[in-house]
Amino acid sequence: MTDTIAARLAELGHTLPQPAAPVAAYVPTVLAGGLLHVSGQLPFVGGALVTGRLGHDVSVEQGYAAAQACGLMLLAQVKAALGSLDRVERVVKLGAFINSTGDFTDQPKVANGASDLMVAAFGDAGRHARSAVGVPTLPLGAAVEIDAVFAVSAA
Amino acid sequence: MTDTIAARLAELGHTLPQPAAPVAAYVPTVLAGGLLHVSGQLPFVGGALVTGRLGHDVSVEQGYAAAQACGLMLLAQVKAALGSLDRVERVVKLGAFINSTGDFTDQPKVANGASDLMVAAFGDAGRHARSAVGVPTLPLGAAVEIDAVFAVSAA
Amino acid sequence: MTDTIAARLAELGHTLPQPAAPVAAYVPTVLAGGLLHVSGQLPFVGGALVTGRLGHDVSVEQGYAAAQACGLMLLAQVKAALGSLDRVERVVKLGAFINSTGDFTDQPKVANGASDLMVAAFGDAGRHARSAVGVPTLPLGAAVEIDAVFAVSAA
Repeated sequence: MTDTIAARLAELGHTLPQPAAPVAAYVPTVLAGGLLHVSGQLPFVGGALVTGRLGHDVSVEQGYAAAQACGLMLLAQVKAALGSLDRVERVVKLGAFINSTGDFTDQPKVANGASDLMVAAFGDAGRHARSAVGVPTLPLGAAVEIDAVFAVSAA
Repeated sequence: MTDTIAARLAELGHTLPQPAAPVAAYVPTVLAGGLLHVSGQLPFVGGALVTGRLGHDVSVEQGYAAAQACGLMLLAQVKAALGSLDRVERVVKLGAFINSTGDFTDQPKVANGASDLMVAAFGDAGRHARSAVGVPTLPLGAAVEIDAVFAVSAA
Repeated sequence: MTDTIAARLAELGHTLPQPAAPVAAYVPTVLAGGLLHVSGQLPFVGGALVTGRLGHDVSVEQGYAAAQACGLMLLAQVKAALGSLDRVERVVKLGAFINSTGDFTDQPKVANGASDLMVAAFGDAGRHARSAVGVPTLPLGAAVEIDAVFAVSAA
């Protein structure tokens, strides 16, 4: 199946990871009413989970890279679900949860790692609504977790 | 109205609770475009709210039971809104917020209490997307809060 | 373009703020499948961001006002996107994140600031599903962040 978006990502130097199996009793994606809901994804770089907390042992730059890794995993899940990223009509919403100390307030700069990736991949169709909040802890100690909603065309 | 799903839950030993009134100025469910959005539900067991924090005074097993109680309340709200759980075509998304200490990282094991319930109730149609994150505190001191989106058939 | 909802808000003494530019690489709203997803909005009162933490240096009353300010900003974004608030068919969901100390558990009373505003603006169509949770920190130190989904009619 043609996938011009995946090809563009490859040109930009991004490799889609192997889609991670859910940590628990759920599935990576559900398509309903033209909207693909994607489970919260954790950041894997080189196969290793990026753990830690912004404001403590993870810098904004490292957090940005972690959010980008979450974004790549979101796209890997979308591709696994749809066959091709070309079926994405719009990135609708990202929900970014940033593992943060109580005095860290740069969640938007961290979440941009995923947001910039979506725009790089899809252009204007990658421009999305977003929330970004701090949380005190995440599954497996991950630094970032991001879930998403995509609008997709019929198969 | 026939409700084979509620009957299946009863066979499994689950009783749907009385749907809780919202704690505040909102409603339990809104149906729009075939998607039923359900407000975040708190865990009531035997009519009492399950309070506390994972990593401190709530064990993973107790947290799992609390998440299951949130799931039962979600289903009670859906049944109150739709008349029958048989109108649920798919559990689309659960958003699980786990009251956690900063070093608790087993949010997925806790959230499974709700996820396993959905699969027990609906089978494959119960398989859903999910996010699960830690939070430092929840309304009324609840141990878990879970909101949801369900795809439903026309009345 | 006629906007009876904005007029009603004005009668109630509410002024819609200038819609805030996103803090980062995303957009305020995305419309897909009849649902308008609105990015998480921060509370600006008189042009100044309301910062601080419930349970520490922000009272429930101040938090309520902050949540109302988030709600006004949500509506300002909806109006900027749609031209008129009259195109809103239903407020579907609010997601409220309340900057909280670990022992603050009145998130619902805070989030009511936005919920009450929606009902004041839209009447029954303003009654929405909601989640409200505590978080340890928010972008720029904001006291509250709220995102939303609205069902809207065709243009």
